[in-house]
Amino acid sequence: MRKVDIYDSTLRDGAQAEGISFSVEDKLRITRALSDLGVRYIEAGNPASNPKDLDFFGRVRRGGKGGAVVVAFGSTRRKGATAAEDKNTAPLVKAGTDAVCIVGKCWDRQVSGILRASLEENIDMIEETVGYFASLGKEVIFDAEHFFDGCKSDTDYPMLCLRAACRAGAAVLSLCDTNGGCFPEEISGLTAKVIKNFDLPVAIHCHNDCGLAVANSIAAVAAGAAQVQGTLTGFGERCGNANLSTVIGNLELKKGISCLANGGIAGLTTACRLISEIANVNPNEREPYTGKSAFAHKGGMHVDGAFKYPGSFEHIDPELVGNRRKFIMSEVAGRSAVIAHIQKIDPSVLRDSPETERIIGKLKELEHFGYQFEAAESTFELVIRKQLGKYKPLFELVNLKIIAEQPYQEGQSASALIKIIVDGKTEITAAEGDGPVNAMDKALRKALCVFYPHLDTMHLTDYKVRVMDGNEATASKVRVLIESADGAESWTTVGVSADIIEASRLALADSIEYKLIKDGAYK
Amino acid sequence: MRKVDIYDSTLRDGAQAEGISFSVEDKLRITRALSDLGVRYIEAGNPASNPKDLDFFGRVRRGGKGGAVVVAFGSTRRKGATAAEDKNTAPLVKAGTDAVCIVGKCWDRQVSGILRASLEENIDMIEETVGYFASLGKEVIFDAEHFFDGCKSDTDYPMLCLRAACRAGAAVLSLCDTNGGCFPEEISGLTAKVIKNFDLPVAIHCHNDCGLAVANSIAAVAAGAAQVQGTLTGFGERCGNANLSTVIGNLELKKGISCLANGGIAGLTTACRLISEIANVNPNEREPYTGKSAFAHKGGMHVDGAFKYPGSFEHIDPELVGNRRKFIMSEVAGRSAVIAHIQKIDPSVLRDSPETERIIGKLKELEHFGYQFEAAESTFELVIRKQLGKYKPLFELVNLKIIAEQPYQEGQSASALIKIIVDGKTEITAAEGDGPVNAMDKALRKALCVFYPHLDTMHLTDYKVRVMDGNEATASKVRVLIESADGAESWTTVGVSADIIEASRLALADSIEYKLIKDGAYK
Repeated sequence: MRKVDIYDSTLRDGAQAEGISFSVEDKLRITRALSDLGVRYIEAGNPASNPKDLDFFGRVRRGGKGGAVVVAFGSTRRKGATAAEDKNTAPLVKAGTDAVCIVGKCWDRQVSGILRASLEENIDMIEETVGYFASLGKEVIFDAEHFFDGCKSDTDYPMLCLRAACRAGAAVLSLCDTNGGCFPEEISGLTAKVIKNFDLPVAIHCHNDCGLAVANSIAAVAAGAAQVQGTLTGFGERCGNANLSTVIGNLELKKGISCLANGGIAGLTTACRLISEIANVNPNEREPYTGKSAFAHKGGMHVDGAFKYPGSFEHIDPELVGNRRKFIMSEVAGRSAVIAHIQKIDPSVLRDSPETERIIGKLKELEHFGYQFEAAESTFELVIRKQLGKYKPLFELVNLKIIAEQPYQEGQSASALIKIIVDGKTEITAAEGDGPVNAMDKALRKALCVFYPHLDTMHLTDYKVRVMDGNEATASKVRVLIESADGAESWTTVGVSADIIEASRLALADSIEYKLIKDGAYK
Repeated sequence: MRKVDIYDSTLRDGAQAEGISFSVEDKLRITRALSDLGVRYIEAGNPASNPKDLDFFGRVRRGGKGGAVVVAFGSTRRKGATAAEDKNTAPLVKAGTDAVCIVGKCWDRQVSGILRASLEENIDMIEETVGYFASLGKEVIFDAEHFFDGCKSDTDYPMLCLRAACRAGAAVLSLCDTNGGCFPEEISGLTAKVIKNFDLPVAIHCHNDCGLAVANSIAAVAAGAAQVQGTLTGFGERCGNANLSTVIGNLELKKGISCLANGGIAGLTTACRLISEIANVNPNEREPYTGKSAFAHKGGMHVDGAFKYPGSFEHIDPELVGNRRKFIMSEVAGRSAVIAHIQKIDPSVLRDSPETERIIGKLKELEHFGYQFEAAESTFELVIRKQLGKYKPLFELVNLKIIAEQPYQEGQSASALIKIIVDGKTEITAAEGDGPVNAMDKALRKALCVFYPHLDTMHLTDYKVRVMDGNEATASKVRVLIESADGAESWTTVGVSADIIEASRLALADSIEYKLIKDGAYK
């Protein structure tokens, strides 16, 4: 079976993305996750441009690094310096990794226009820097910046750069489509040419500015590349790097090319979600293979087809990558989608039981009112419980009063006074907040924590408001979605009302009841 | 210059995406935006599966439809029915469009396993349904579902399906990679084969389950396809449809193939953001060509390179698609975009006037805070007026108190007490409403109408709330967009705050001031 090495640069190129910034602790966690997944190389930082990376490299060595090779990234020495005494190279030596990646310019007009060096000088800079690190016994990956753009402008010069790296003892030649402007046929032709002319493994490094980074990486592998560089979730400057989770899915499951050690592919979805979580960005739900929606079926025809025969509307079995099939609750979804949810709560209810009929009727009624359950399965679960007689309220709201004042003053523009009853006992309390919803949220939790102290392990992670049928303007119904998490799990609930306070209250109450039920309140 | 038709299915396939649901008003606005952009075909709904689509088709005809052809989508007749009297086909006739898209199954095992029809019956269903609509004088696009999967399982059967559609008078054959599991070389080979054997224009319809929908669409065009189907922002079931904005950028700017009427490509970024805004989803910042980060430079080396020579780290000039370069550390806003708005208010201000500098500074400050002016030009116009000294407030809000109570009682869950000053005269009044925002809206208008009676010609037509940075949960900043109209014109304003009442108040105040200024309050 053919094998291709995966080289992940989430911690270096990924960190160049707008809005992304990793702490040393974040980097250590991501390194572990990538290593567990079975990635071969982890490019973990540029110690010359980011001094705090040195701290990371020190700790990753002490902490062990699993099966993956940790790589430090840096540039060729500056013009006029020597490789051993340059501010670009010295921090890389300090990083103390077994492998380094050295980027060198290969596009003639960048050498003159940006480095302000002669073409010969640049060749010397490449050769001396690669040679220096090779002489220290390190595995040197030569990163040929703008290789493809350079070839389009002058085919010979980039090849001379590769030749210099080769002479100096590089272990891998990495061909970069730095601007992401190439098409698969260009990548394929030039990659094949390098493979034919050089006796070293070739890596491909693509960016997604034309939405072609995955296709380009696959084209290079078809032409013989031995290594694919990118980032597991596609993070990266501008439009991102080649999304390695998609590349891995395509190569392992469609092309029969092994990418990850130890059958790691079953952990692909978990690894992607973990990295998004550490980076504090919402995972792209539509991401091929690993996205939450990647195997979600909504249209009635599709849901029906996917039930009768999953291969109908799925290109792979989602479990192969650790993802799962999902039937979205919606007016276009039929009975098949609903029954799976019902049986989670009561396995004895069948497709044609009267309870199923009643629940579908309730679903339609609520959807007509403006509810949407596709992103709020926890509220749907509570609806099912109510219809099956498997629900009893865990608290009663007696009264809630909100007083808000404008002009706005931060942190105290609204206050809420709340009275609830739990098991016959009354609690009255109050809280201030940023706006009426926040004040209510705080007051309700404060009151409930008196009875359910472990509620403080739960927190809200997302809050969305959708105004429906906006032409009723400020009297329109609003739909509020609340996502909550408690470390072990995350769940989403929904509330609908013409009053945003009520819609938020309903979603919030469901979110809290779901938590209490899953923690055993009914047991 | 070679030309390829663009066929957008945001309103049909896009609406199948998890979390997306359009009102009739949303659909009309998206239709206008796509038509303005220069898209050739707009697939706008499936009237058989979604009865409220009929309302849309009725209104889109009355409202005129610009240059684009509006298409209604439906399936072949059911087994055993006649094409003229089938519940799949009748609603399509009612939709009254000049063009219809008829989907027919082309994968043998789907025909038997899901339709439970014989292969011959299915051929009849295709031929009769296409023939029926052709006989009504409609342009029929035949959508060959699972065409590529079908060919992989039995090359002949899908070709027989195309042949039947052809005989019956189809105008276009659309080849679908329904599960999104194909690679460019498969798409390319089979598309070329169909083009060789059939004398009809061929369309390509790809899904993104392997992250290859763009590459596959481009491969089909290279093989001779005359039409590309997809959705402008990539919305669609599972991993989405081919992202047409990326396809258009690649074909027009890299391959010299014209896609949009009237040089529409300069409006690409605006159209994508507008559609995301209407769908109430956050636009993907990394989207090729149109994403906010698509030309954002963060790495010091890249920023430097991009300054010295923009082509260094950009594959195209961002202005070609209406996007702009962004330096994340030292942001430089697109002056050209701003100057047009400034000159609307004061034609004497020039590109390099100090006023322009000041306005761009203010714009950046507000955007950093969370404002977005793409869909709220009226607020932006007020910002410009304030910076140019061409603004004086038309009322002063002294105080606003809101009292809300739960459990909710319709029409009276909140009351607002307001005090304003206009020209030294004070007005105090109060109103009740559905929730705090509605109560405030009513009270403010009631107070202002005392001084500006013609305000009653103005009404709010849309109200949208977007929660930003949702992981601050109920304390997150919200952006409120309000659309108003007075019969002659409609305009949109924006307000941002952590308090939804303040955000709404700001947008509402701008909306009223814009109306008063345009009616001559300053003259």
